[in-house]
Amino acid sequence: MSTPKPTIAEVAVLARVSAPTVSKVINGRADVAAETRARVEDAIDQLGYQRRRQGPPAPGTGLVDLVFHRIGSPWAGEIIGGVESAAAEARVSVILTELGGAHRPPASWVETTLARPPLGILLVASHLTPSQREQIAHRSIPVVVIDTDGESPEDVAAVGSDNWGGGLLATRHLIGLGHTRIAAIGGPATMLSSRARLDGFRSAHAEAGIAVDPHLVMEGDFYVGAGYRAARELFAMPPGRRPTAVFAGSDMQALGVLRAAHECGLVVPRDVSVVGYDDLTLCEWSAPSLTSVDQKLATQGAVATRLVLDLAEGRRPALDRVNLTAELVVRESTAPPPAP
Amino acid sequence: MSTPKPTIAEVAVLARVSAPTVSKVINGRADVAAETRARVEDAIDQLGYQRRRQGPPAPGTGLVDLVFHRIGSPWAGEIIGGVESAAAEARVSVILTELGGAHRPPASWVETTLARPPLGILLVASHLTPSQREQIAHRSIPVVVIDTDGESPEDVAAVGSDNWGGGLLATRHLIGLGHTRIAAIGGPATMLSSRARLDGFRSAHAEAGIAVDPHLVMEGDFYVGAGYRAARELFAMPPGRRPTAVFAGSDMQALGVLRAAHECGLVVPRDVSVVGYDDLTLCEWSAPSLTSVDQKLATQGAVATRLVLDLAEGRRPALDRVNLTAELVVRESTAPPPAP
Repeated sequence: MSTPKPTIAEVAVLARVSAPTVSKVINGRADVAAETRARVEDAIDQLGYQRRRQGPPAPGTGLVDLVFHRIGSPWAGEIIGGVESAAAEARVSVILTELGGAHRPPASWVETTLARPPLGILLVASHLTPSQREQIAHRSIPVVVIDTDGESPEDVAAVGSDNWGGGLLATRHLIGLGHTRIAAIGGPATMLSSRARLDGFRSAHAEAGIAVDPHLVMEGDFYVGAGYRAARELFAMPPGRRPTAVFAGSDMQALGVLRAAHECGLVVPRDVSVVGYDDLTLCEWSAPSLTSVDQKLATQGAVATRLVLDLAEGRRPALDRVNLTAELVVRESTAPPPAP
Repeated sequence: MSTPKPTIAEVAVLARVSAPTVSKVINGRADVAAETRARVEDAIDQLGYQRRRQGPPAPGTGLVDLVFHRIGSPWAGEIIGGVESAAAEARVSVILTELGGAHRPPASWVETTLARPPLGILLVASHLTPSQREQIAHRSIPVVVIDTDGESPEDVAAVGSDNWGGGLLATRHLIGLGHTRIAAIGGPATMLSSRARLDGFRSAHAEAGIAVDPHLVMEGDFYVGAGYRAARELFAMPPGRRPTAVFAGSDMQALGVLRAAHECGLVVPRDVSVVGYDDLTLCEWSAPSLTSVDQKLATQGAVATRLVLDLAEGRRPALDRVNLTAELVVRESTAPPPAP
């Protein structure tokens, strides 16, 4: 004897709402109060109401949503390239959304996205609110975070990079060249990735028995202007206190440091060494070319895309939270410190 | 007395194919021989068969397809940013496709795209084949070309930039500083945009009564490596023949020129002046900062997006082929030539 399947009407009765309200919740519409939504979701769980599953999309019509908090930088371009290449291989199209600098999508985004709906969602440097996560999870749409800030919740699949190891590598390289007064320009202190890189920086000092001068550790925002301003401050220090090397925290900030050095009449690497982070294409072509830490952004994008498509097809890979190992790429911008 | 509407079956009889084949053509499927497709399209036109028009999409669910031949460069990032901002304003999502370097989409792309279908299509530095254009036109999906190569067919809506005027501005600026031996690095000779910039370069020479040395006009591909290789060749010329200024054709090529100057021990702008093209963010931050021609890529993207959405809603604007005027942005990389 089979139990009859529960209907939307039954969910509505249990949740003390109208049937159209239940439909709205199922379709991820934004115009439902949070409290009402929670009651409906509870009723759905209690009754075991089965949402209609969509069949697999026709070949070539599947979508993946790629959500950036901000697109403008070449940094974003590397990730987009990696996602596009993996998506093209899987014959899936990519919807690109920019949140205009916000780190959380607006409520309207969930409604729009669930109306599509995509096979999966990739989030870059942005996160869902708990209620957004719940809405999307209820529709069985997998989410993978491209975890450039290392802050994704533990139960979310994520592809990232070993930021601590990257900071360690960069700083070990400078110490190995003989530097002892090394500055670091971090990203925003609120970002785990930035803190991890700085901790790697400190750890490399500790293992070499060199004290970190706290005046040489500056906060930035990973963009060019912040690197420029921090470096102007560092290079204005009197010669004995001035750093002989700068771990710039990002390639964009390193570009600002090169610019500040140029304006202050310092020659890189003769007077000051500079290490970037990201290994963007510009590293190879800046003058001097830039020593940088490769966090394999394009690979992160490709791995995350394959992961979200695997999850969409019901395969749960052994590893759904991975950090790619960072690699140091030595170019012209680093050399031994000037003779004192 | 109203005439009954023609059916798919009637189209099939007239075209001497099966009804499923007619459906395939209507849905833009790739697996129909070109000759068969043409016969079906003819039959559709002859009988006046009305394709089912889709109603307007629910708010926030409309799509625009943005197709690039290649995404990797910061140049693409500026256009994507402009398209994203205009799309967000209109509550439309953007599907981003990269053709992996090809300038024409593969047949499978049309099938995938018509299966969606988007409100409109934006093509960047890529073009449709006549049969692809016909398939898309039959579905009343507007196409706008973001016309960075100046080669779009006359009956296609296009947003571009005045490349000839840009080349003229850049070269007038160098001549005004006193340069008479000016090199130019173009893009591929097959691209109209490149030829227009070089013609502007020649025209500025002509109006100043200065002869162009054909040895100083090089062909590139708009990417960094080509600028680097051309500049190495130019800087290896004996002092009397060597150019005192380089119009680099693109910012990426200018980056290669700066790199080559650095390697050859030439100081920019003391020994050689350099002008880029595109006014990418990097111009402001390169050392020295780069004089460049702003072709307003982000604005081109935004204008094209608004245009394709207007066309999708049945409004035909007075101007559907526009070239934005280029502007010269003078920075540190240009100065009078060294004393002979």
